[in-house]
Amino acid sequence: LIRMLCAGICNTDLELQRGYYGFRGTPGHEFVGEVVAADNSTWIGQRVVGEINLACGHCEWCQRGLGRHCPRRTVLGIVKHPGAFREVLTLPEDNLHPVPREISTAQAVFVEPLAAACEILDQVRIPAGAPVAVLGDGKLGLLIGQVLRAHGAEVHQFGHHRDKLRIAAAAGIDVRVGKKTPVAAYDWVVDATGSNLGLAQAVKMTKPRGTVILKSSVHGLVGIDSAPVIVNEITLVGSRCGRFEPALKLLRSGRVRVDNLISEALPLKKASLAFRRAAQPGAMKVLLDA
Amino acid sequence: LIRMLCAGICNTDLELQRGYYGFRGTPGHEFVGEVVAADNSTWIGQRVVGEINLACGHCEWCQRGLGRHCPRRTVLGIVKHPGAFREVLTLPEDNLHPVPREISTAQAVFVEPLAAACEILDQVRIPAGAPVAVLGDGKLGLLIGQVLRAHGAEVHQFGHHRDKLRIAAAAGIDVRVGKKTPVAAYDWVVDATGSNLGLAQAVKMTKPRGTVILKSSVHGLVGIDSAPVIVNEITLVGSRCGRFEPALKLLRSGRVRVDNLISEALPLKKASLAFRRAAQPGAMKVLLDA
Repeated sequence: LIRMLCAGICNTDLELQRGYYGFRGTPGHEFVGEVVAADNSTWIGQRVVGEINLACGHCEWCQRGLGRHCPRRTVLGIVKHPGAFREVLTLPEDNLHPVPREISTAQAVFVEPLAAACEILDQVRIPAGAPVAVLGDGKLGLLIGQVLRAHGAEVHQFGHHRDKLRIAAAAGIDVRVGKKTPVAAYDWVVDATGSNLGLAQAVKMTKPRGTVILKSSVHGLVGIDSAPVIVNEITLVGSRCGRFEPALKLLRSGRVRVDNLISEALPLKKASLAFRRAAQPGAMKVLLDA
Repeated sequence: LIRMLCAGICNTDLELQRGYYGFRGTPGHEFVGEVVAADNSTWIGQRVVGEINLACGHCEWCQRGLGRHCPRRTVLGIVKHPGAFREVLTLPEDNLHPVPREISTAQAVFVEPLAAACEILDQVRIPAGAPVAVLGDGKLGLLIGQVLRAHGAEVHQFGHHRDKLRIAAAAGIDVRVGKKTPVAAYDWVVDATGSNLGLAQAVKMTKPRGTVILKSSVHGLVGIDSAPVIVNEITLVGSRCGRFEPALKLLRSGRVRVDNLISEALPLKKASLAFRRAAQPGAMKVLLDA
């Protein structure tokens, strides 16, 4: 049993609100809390973040350490498990990670999306120094840019918002504003546009035998012309949630900065206002404080 | 300079005829011929097959041995280089491979599409004994099934045509007729349906973290729902032409059989009838004899 301290509104929460996943109940999956009751009493009083997939623990996937793909999983605030936008929530102790004191509560809210950004490096081997194009300058795109830069890649971040790209530039990332993108220019391209045009654009930017990482959760059908994917033998890699350990390490070391990704913090009882704010164009992370 | 002995009509040739690639001139890229003139006179009189991409030989791709992706390439009978459906044709000597005498001329026509099937194994590492689903029972699908079986995979071939699947079954492949396909059942799925519904079906059949190989050349937009690709972290790999060496080896050893993939052989002067025959539903390979 966890007392919520702070939570973050994610685009997925806005989509849940629009009814996309058929979820009913309390949303919220990015949170920091304090354990108030646990089987193992050493957890009690600890400040924690929690992995959001509740796995069965027994199947092939769980045995392989990939409970995130357990077919019987529920997901905090997304699939059949009540979420974090309330005073208290529950998660299995196995899902919890203590938050080191170097990381503030507001910063720790970013562990979950930062883990999703880190997931890319668990899936593909990007050589140090390789130029990587990151499409999109939203919250996830800006986290991905920082993660790949911390990994040693030469990140080029493409977006349409000068103010958001300034955040990337402040992190030492090479930024490109506007619609023009180079053709067949990168071995590695990450689509974090959140747009159903992002994938086709990413494919265009990719060199033959290159890799596109799909980080945009777009709803409905995405029209892709499979011909360039086949002719240029491009690899597309779907990418979702990640392990929390590398995200905690990056936040603790200060190699990824999240403070300037926060738009504002509102109290939990103003959640419905907070959702409206989070849905506004240009909004960054809106936090809910307990 | 090569005198054509026998050539094969590919689906790409039918698409060229429909105007898809903006190609004008003589089509034809699957052929066997006899060299009649060459700078290096040791070629003269040899029975040869030829790689279809004419690369610049100098660029980054050519240096890496991937002239098939040279951006300045022309392609025999497909892009700016006259094809093989005529009495004589030209190719650079570097593109030629002598045909071992164990391989008949009609069999050697299959080297090019068989190389495209073998390309899969140059791109992804499929463990021996792994179950692999091959969707599609057309010419390419049947070659792919045999290649993967020769590699040691446990191939399940899915299709709608009992007579075509019999060819796969005769090669010792486990075949499945009809529309019902299992969900999230394979780590490896090859889409060789040639249909714009094939990709979505392939994604459905793939386990989380599994791989779909795209071998269907479909024209226009393919609608894919990227959500399952992302949620299940599936990898999609576009795959096109391959090296001729492994294809020649498989034909020579008899581990891949192609004789029963031939519908009929017509003389070159009946090419336009041959094209109509090749376009008929259920047609397999139609050959053109010089």
